[in-house]
Amino acid sequence: MTYCVGIRLNAGLVFLSDSRTNAGVDAISTFRKMMVYEKPGDRFLTLLSAGNLSISQSVREILQVEKLPNGDGEPITIWNATSMFDAARVLGSAVRRVYEQDGPALRAAGVDFNCSMIFGGQIGDEATRLFLVYSAGNFIEATRETCFFQIGESKYGKPILDRVLTPTTPLAEAAKCALVSMDSTIKSNLSVGLPLDLLVYESGRLQSDKVIVIDDQNPYFQMIHSTWGQRLREVFEGIDDPCWDSREVDHPLMAQSERYEPMRKIVRPEDRIV
Amino acid sequence: MTYCVGIRLNAGLVFLSDSRTNAGVDAISTFRKMMVYEKPGDRFLTLLSAGNLSISQSVREILQVEKLPNGDGEPITIWNATSMFDAARVLGSAVRRVYEQDGPALRAAGVDFNCSMIFGGQIGDEATRLFLVYSAGNFIEATRETCFFQIGESKYGKPILDRVLTPTTPLAEAAKCALVSMDSTIKSNLSVGLPLDLLVYESGRLQSDKVIVIDDQNPYFQMIHSTWGQRLREVFEGIDDPCWDSREVDHPLMAQSERYEPMRKIVRPEDRIV
Repeated sequence: MTYCVGIRLNAGLVFLSDSRTNAGVDAISTFRKMMVYEKPGDRFLTLLSAGNLSISQSVREILQVEKLPNGDGEPITIWNATSMFDAARVLGSAVRRVYEQDGPALRAAGVDFNCSMIFGGQIGDEATRLFLVYSAGNFIEATRETCFFQIGESKYGKPILDRVLTPTTPLAEAAKCALVSMDSTIKSNLSVGLPLDLLVYESGRLQSDKVIVIDDQNPYFQMIHSTWGQRLREVFEGIDDPCWDSREVDHPLMAQSERYEPMRKIVRPEDRIV
Repeated sequence: MTYCVGIRLNAGLVFLSDSRTNAGVDAISTFRKMMVYEKPGDRFLTLLSAGNLSISQSVREILQVEKLPNGDGEPITIWNATSMFDAARVLGSAVRRVYEQDGPALRAAGVDFNCSMIFGGQIGDEATRLFLVYSAGNFIEATRETCFFQIGESKYGKPILDRVLTPTTPLAEAAKCALVSMDSTIKSNLSVGLPLDLLVYESGRLQSDKVIVIDDQNPYFQMIHSTWGQRLREVFEGIDDPCWDSREVDHPLMAQSERYEPMRKIVRPEDRIV
């Protein structure tokens, strides 16, 4: 599996991906899932991919040369698109092209055409934008209300993102949040693993800036890994245990609402009082 | 959906279940998912169920009267089984009976026979035991190394269980841990909802003792809900943001291992230097 997260903030974009793939537990490999398409000063695009590796690798390859018809004008590519929306359309088209090529054979083999991608960046004067692209080539865009997308094994790491991220979160804090989210995912799911690719993009720079490969030797990730687990345990221990006697504490567990009966209890039929 | 967790500790057992079911977003209901089968002083069994509600309700109903052949002896039921293993076999048999009754029609309607259950308790002098029962009626048992089972929407709430629970965890702390796990799940997934059923069973009592229905008015769960989210944010904020300059800090993010190249970057084909 895979875990990737893309975050869109007022200050810019954060992308984080793991690099583990597996086809059964005896076919585990490392493949990087982040790709940057960049023309410094003009455009900066980042793609994260999950799903069937053969599909996502094909899409990444095709994306560089994919062309969308544009009436009588020059076909639209990711290199000349004037908006991120058009660039996302080119990506959707690349996904559909791979589907045309491989879909029937995959279906015949009983394999789903399974691929999802996070695609974000900035083109010229447009604001940064972030998209989630599905295997049908359609896509949705992140908004102020929903400022991040996850693909792959997304559930373990979602609670901390839900609790921390807003559009005004600073870039460094969002990067930290993504790493904590990744750490929780790695701890709970063997199919997500190091090394990680982290990219932090500051709005308006139009080129990649802070890019790092994080492996188990990385001091910051080591610190996150050990500190977060330990502090989480400290917080957990700092919260009162439930008390069943309602007279003694501020937060009794036993103060039960009258609205619900206790769960159904069954006694042995022959023990019932008739 | 559903989220249920069952925990087996040296001190006893903890069971927690939500009560939301849905068949699409416009068919959301409250159904309790915990059932206790009890003969005080002799046996104490608890069942948590997830999956198709019609299946799990049928299984619960049948379980009271299900009989397993026992050679020439009296058939085995959950009321006379001399071990939790035999009681789990009776439950597996009940699942298979519902499969015989409903499986073909469900398959014809394109509905999976989807049902999973956590079943634990204590019979006589035997130690407490905890099982995870699958839709084929087969089951696995919790051990010292893996002392909890989850069914339903299990991923959001798994990290805190992974970090806290060991067989020596006290019962009250495990109940708190299950509630924190549930709180994270409810926050991140609309298909899991209040009220909750919480049951804490102390080894050797052979009857249910601490049983509570928790709704949004419960002072302890309210405290968990507000405190955990807030403390989590405080811990998060207390961890250093990543620093990209490796000279200034203890935990630089930029101290990159030489083992991996940065992720692949593509520049526009015509910009390549040939």
